[in-house]
Amino acid sequence: MNHATIMCDMDRPIEPGHFSTCEAGLEKHIVGCCSVDFPVAAVLPAGGSGERTGLSTPKQFCTFLNRPLISYTIQTFERVPWIQSIVVVVAKESLDLMMDIVHRFHHTKVLVVHGGSTRHRSIFNGVCALSKREDGTALVKPKVVIIHDAVRPFVEEDFLLKITMAAKEQGAAGAIRPLVSTVIAATSEGYLDHSLERTKYKASEMPQGFLYDVIYKAYLSCSESDFEFGTECLHLVLRYCGTNAKLIEGPPTLWKVTYKRDLAAAESIVKGTLSESACVVAGGSKRAAELARVLQKSMGVLGMMNIHSLSEVEKTLSMLEDADRALLHPVVIIWVHLKSLEDDSSVNEERAAMMDLASGAKLRNVLVYGIQLHHSKEAQLWERSVERLTEISSALIRDRTPALIGQLLQA
Amino acid sequence: MNHATIMCDMDRPIEPGHFSTCEAGLEKHIVGCCSVDFPVAAVLPAGGSGERTGLSTPKQFCTFLNRPLISYTIQTFERVPWIQSIVVVVAKESLDLMMDIVHRFHHTKVLVVHGGSTRHRSIFNGVCALSKREDGTALVKPKVVIIHDAVRPFVEEDFLLKITMAAKEQGAAGAIRPLVSTVIAATSEGYLDHSLERTKYKASEMPQGFLYDVIYKAYLSCSESDFEFGTECLHLVLRYCGTNAKLIEGPPTLWKVTYKRDLAAAESIVKGTLSESACVVAGGSKRAAELARVLQKSMGVLGMMNIHSLSEVEKTLSMLEDADRALLHPVVIIWVHLKSLEDDSSVNEERAAMMDLASGAKLRNVLVYGIQLHHSKEAQLWERSVERLTEISSALIRDRTPALIGQLLQA
Repeated sequence: MNHATIMCDMDRPIEPGHFSTCEAGLEKHIVGCCSVDFPVAAVLPAGGSGERTGLSTPKQFCTFLNRPLISYTIQTFERVPWIQSIVVVVAKESLDLMMDIVHRFHHTKVLVVHGGSTRHRSIFNGVCALSKREDGTALVKPKVVIIHDAVRPFVEEDFLLKITMAAKEQGAAGAIRPLVSTVIAATSEGYLDHSLERTKYKASEMPQGFLYDVIYKAYLSCSESDFEFGTECLHLVLRYCGTNAKLIEGPPTLWKVTYKRDLAAAESIVKGTLSESACVVAGGSKRAAELARVLQKSMGVLGMMNIHSLSEVEKTLSMLEDADRALLHPVVIIWVHLKSLEDDSSVNEERAAMMDLASGAKLRNVLVYGIQLHHSKEAQLWERSVERLTEISSALIRDRTPALIGQLLQA
Repeated sequence: MNHATIMCDMDRPIEPGHFSTCEAGLEKHIVGCCSVDFPVAAVLPAGGSGERTGLSTPKQFCTFLNRPLISYTIQTFERVPWIQSIVVVVAKESLDLMMDIVHRFHHTKVLVVHGGSTRHRSIFNGVCALSKREDGTALVKPKVVIIHDAVRPFVEEDFLLKITMAAKEQGAAGAIRPLVSTVIAATSEGYLDHSLERTKYKASEMPQGFLYDVIYKAYLSCSESDFEFGTECLHLVLRYCGTNAKLIEGPPTLWKVTYKRDLAAAESIVKGTLSESACVVAGGSKRAAELARVLQKSMGVLGMMNIHSLSEVEKTLSMLEDADRALLHPVVIIWVHLKSLEDDSSVNEERAAMMDLASGAKLRNVLVYGIQLHHSKEAQLWERSVERLTEISSALIRDRTPALIGQLLQA
């Protein structure tokens, strides 16, 4: 009996035994490291109540693919080697939850502090936390501090680098985006007063970067009314330090997860990225190798290895666990069961074994699915089956539906 | 052998033989009809090239759940009985595609015209099409014309009514939303000049409504520069007719599908709505009826009927087809196969019959899945199976994955 396994991972191909060498974005990191020869820290205000999502959980704590949104954002910053520390500012009532998330997803650069009653007060708390420890001893004060919303998980290292370098040179820098809608002013009675010329204005987004001393001074100088009603850090440094921030147009992925639909959009982006790095692992027979080639071609997958039975899937599971590969994203394993027509006796046992295996794996964030493929010698039947196998695999890898684990599907 | 079927439909429960009587939103329609005693038409500009989605297809023609986005928007307007006609304005090269969509999804109120080189020219073409036929004979000129983007599919009748009534009374009315980001002005060198006070400004959205004579006059009076560079109809009627539009805050669902992620968000909203109206259809046995009650409770489903075998699923398929129920949305049918343990002989035949049935149904936009449930007398095993059945069914109904049709899953 022959088997093939399709594996699918978060952001890089898996080859067992080589888990640790193929980290993504290594070259980019080296580029960043060379130009950033000064300390940089990030402050992530995450105190919002999420009333606009229409959900009871604040949106930064909403979960998709088994992980809260804020952990995706933290991961984005943790991956950047030239960012030394990340201060997450949360509401007092979320402190325990946040500490639990930091612990559960092994976030190592994070310092959690509680926020103030408004956005500016929270950011100021975060900024202050970077220059003193709670026992009063000093940390290495950063040269540049990046401020970024916890609910914008998709900022890229390249863009963080641009903001950081501009902040170092100009004192302040901020992301902007073109306006999607025309901005209008209303009369107090609710009628149109005038509309702004769209090309002259921009939407101010995050991240923003500041020389530490500039943002710190701005907060020390600003009024109670700024603390109470203001939202825009760029405005404060202009007003209180005379610093005109450099504005840099960012990509659309900087958008802020605001509504429930944005969570679906974020999940779809993450799923799309994960799907791009599936990896076919073929059995030892000629047929399995041939099948692996077809799958690799039609699914655009990246790597290969040999697996000969369900027990090999189990071994792979252990390897994944040892390498902590399913910590941040659910990993998909599809066991392809190449079956000849006369060979029908053991199916029920295999079905039960699959379900047991998959139930255990699910607890470790690995989703195991099975696909049975008839080993037909008729070319047309075989091609149809392979086509169906590809369709089903793509859907399973894309959707990562926990409810379907352990099923032995028919291709 | 006993069977239960879970069916799932677009926006209302299905009870065979009662397909035509349970149309959604009937009461609301009557409300709208009473207050709108004048002719109303809509113009949907749909000439955009979709460059911001990062897709090759303009976003209004991007498809999810087997239907292009623009058809969802048209459907929204067609359902409103007091809107008499809908002019869709498309680029010349999309005329055939658009006519095909109108034909395929049975849109009956739609007139397709080709657009101009800019947004305002396209809207003006649409407005003009409402007062003359191509052969020069007159249509019933509408009193109020609603202008709405083809890429905002989720506008509700209530809100269209508000805009329409305000337009009739004030001459013009437009939807607004609070600003999500601070709006800033940049210097020509790309530095912050000043930021606007967020509370004083609003984002101008769609729909907008106008007295026909007001918008027509504004277009006749406006300059070439307005036609070339302008985007905001409210601005034109203010400038050329002195009409201050009434501004009405709309719900967040008015948002414009702009990026690829917005398509995922839109799909998720539609799937969510569809999932809310599943319907359990139980077999005749005591066990099947009991199961149906459990499912109905845990899935929040709405209706029931009796089905006794796979051939009954086939009958339901024919009924769906006769009633044209799967025209606008894929309908999900889950055949629940209650199986006793000793009864294992015919599974392979049933599996093959399922796949054949499902392949045929897919061509008619009906997705058939099977779930096999062991008829265990042990309470704990039975409960676990029912729980799994609920999980799997919810996932299938939610995801509507075409690749998984015809599978006989194990609960």
